[in-house]
Amino acid sequence: MLERIKRISSWLAENEVEVAFLTSPDNVFYLSGFLSDPHERLLGVAIFQDAEPFLICPSMEKDSAKHAGWSYEVIGYSDTDNPWDIVQKAITSRVSTVHTVAIEKEHMNVERYEKLNGMFHRAKFISAEEKLRKLRLKKDPQELEKIREACALADYAIEVGVAEIAEGKTELDVLGAIEYALKKKGVLAMSFSTMVLTGKNAASPHGTPGDTKIKKGDLVLFDLGVVVDGYCSDITRTVAYQDINNEQEHIYQTVLKAQLEALKTIRPGVPCSEVDIAARNFISSAGYGEYFPHRLGHGLGISVHEYPSLTETNPLILEEGAVFTVEPGIYVPGLAGVRIEDDIAITKSGIEVLTKYPKELQIIR
Amino acid sequence: MLERIKRISSWLAENEVEVAFLTSPDNVFYLSGFLSDPHERLLGVAIFQDAEPFLICPSMEKDSAKHAGWSYEVIGYSDTDNPWDIVQKAITSRVSTVHTVAIEKEHMNVERYEKLNGMFHRAKFISAEEKLRKLRLKKDPQELEKIREACALADYAIEVGVAEIAEGKTELDVLGAIEYALKKKGVLAMSFSTMVLTGKNAASPHGTPGDTKIKKGDLVLFDLGVVVDGYCSDITRTVAYQDINNEQEHIYQTVLKAQLEALKTIRPGVPCSEVDIAARNFISSAGYGEYFPHRLGHGLGISVHEYPSLTETNPLILEEGAVFTVEPGIYVPGLAGVRIEDDIAITKSGIEVLTKYPKELQIIR
Repeated sequence: MLERIKRISSWLAENEVEVAFLTSPDNVFYLSGFLSDPHERLLGVAIFQDAEPFLICPSMEKDSAKHAGWSYEVIGYSDTDNPWDIVQKAITSRVSTVHTVAIEKEHMNVERYEKLNGMFHRAKFISAEEKLRKLRLKKDPQELEKIREACALADYAIEVGVAEIAEGKTELDVLGAIEYALKKKGVLAMSFSTMVLTGKNAASPHGTPGDTKIKKGDLVLFDLGVVVDGYCSDITRTVAYQDINNEQEHIYQTVLKAQLEALKTIRPGVPCSEVDIAARNFISSAGYGEYFPHRLGHGLGISVHEYPSLTETNPLILEEGAVFTVEPGIYVPGLAGVRIEDDIAITKSGIEVLTKYPKELQIIR
Repeated sequence: MLERIKRISSWLAENEVEVAFLTSPDNVFYLSGFLSDPHERLLGVAIFQDAEPFLICPSMEKDSAKHAGWSYEVIGYSDTDNPWDIVQKAITSRVSTVHTVAIEKEHMNVERYEKLNGMFHRAKFISAEEKLRKLRLKKDPQELEKIREACALADYAIEVGVAEIAEGKTELDVLGAIEYALKKKGVLAMSFSTMVLTGKNAASPHGTPGDTKIKKGDLVLFDLGVVVDGYCSDITRTVAYQDINNEQEHIYQTVLKAQLEALKTIRPGVPCSEVDIAARNFISSAGYGEYFPHRLGHGLGISVHEYPSLTETNPLILEEGAVFTVEPGIYVPGLAGVRIEDDIAITKSGIEVLTKYPKELQIIR
């Protein structure tokens, strides 16, 4: 955490910004180790060029913030305090003039922004989000270990889901069994709403799980993730229930080969675009280009969608420590929906595939 | 929906506001019937004093928006369009000058606000949230029916949870069984993270469900809600596992009587404060005032927390159609945590209790 704060302090100095006041639970967690969702209450971390940072949170959370490892000042407030007065005092006691404040413009709401504006009404406000996204790109060994754990649980979830498949079971039946098994393992939160989609639903980009029943010849698509100590995994597998036709099988093999082609290109020094294009070209050559309507993948960590973004046009160079998904898909309405998604970490010289559930076509009898 | 839009139009006219541009999924749903979470993509409804309203959403959602019942213009945009240019054109084609714009200041982020500011740089921005909160206070018969359904499923969830209680089961075991059973009934979303807390965890305001096991003499607290067609329920029940001691039982009976006292006061014309105070005085007289640290209840509907807020000081007069929770609690660290929560609708002359699971002390053997 100290290293992360130092990097923000240096960035403030380089950009002549007196203070960064960061309020998204994700970035507060990244910078302080304190994982908390304060809902409408104020939670924030203030970082300066030289002065001591502080964390502000509801009084009843003070001890948790300290236990989480924040070694600087923690300021608590009660429901009858005005936390913004406290923030103003804490900032002005640390820096004499405030010309520029860094905030998270995509996270902070207008109401809070107007309060900060009122406090520092001659100041310019810039966004710290791009800087934080770049810092968060490179995962350290402790972060990687949490993501590995989250991936192992995601593998287990797929195993449970596949075992649950049977004629006439609904998507929600299978989904319920997966989340039940995870809770038995102590999992409290999923990275996002678990998806179990069968047949036509899997082939639609709008599918949401419901009471559609699994029937012979369906492809069943699972997309899910698990949160471990604040870190997310994200896996997709597609399996066949009983006999599928030749085109369905061809689509499956095309997605699988596209995914393997993409994985082959990944190593430090390669731009994101190259990885996306490897999968995209393979799918286009097979004649399914128009049925692969989304980017190849996205970074993950504290958020389930973070940097890097694997698109055709992103020039960002992949470096050691980046963690992201590789998830090509083909969705032909009425015929087949197939997506295969792994989570990948970039190592010194290549990749570590963090999700390990098998990818060869599985036909459930 | 038409009536709701008319009310916003009148409010705009009264306040000399040319346009309201509303972007929270909850308010878009309230005004259009279109329930969608666009994540980082723009979704919005624009309402004018006289001109035709419009809804803007990603192109692939256009049909869903129309099917949901929005009868005015739906403007779609693709990922390569700049949706803000489209918004600007659509607004300026409807009103010649824009002096004041109503937005949701607690929902809109600074990045979007700066875009709107750039479009209408001489305009004043005011918040429409208070107006929408007040409109949403009074539920119509269709809304009430959805909430009733959500409450019936919440009752069922408690039934499942109570039946699951046994020596040595963990909080997450029971929680998993509840959500599994709900998925079997076709429930896709909960109103918030389901809580199952036992013993000391129930007695702590910070409790989160985990691997704590149920043991003899525990009070087990359930707090959960179900979403049906965009409308939320919220119920809490506390039951005893095997023999509890006299003080635990006394606390239970005190909470129950306080809840019944509060219910007795509710009818159209009564201020929120009176309801809170009825329960609070009863608990204070019993000597547990300091152990009831939260408001008595909150409105619910499209959001699980909306108007009215039942606090000691809220002068808001309750009227027919208001729907809210009544949930006194006593939490004595190390000894007992009890909360009993029902959802209530105000009728013409009194109340309808929407959650129906029994409240008498239940001792599970």
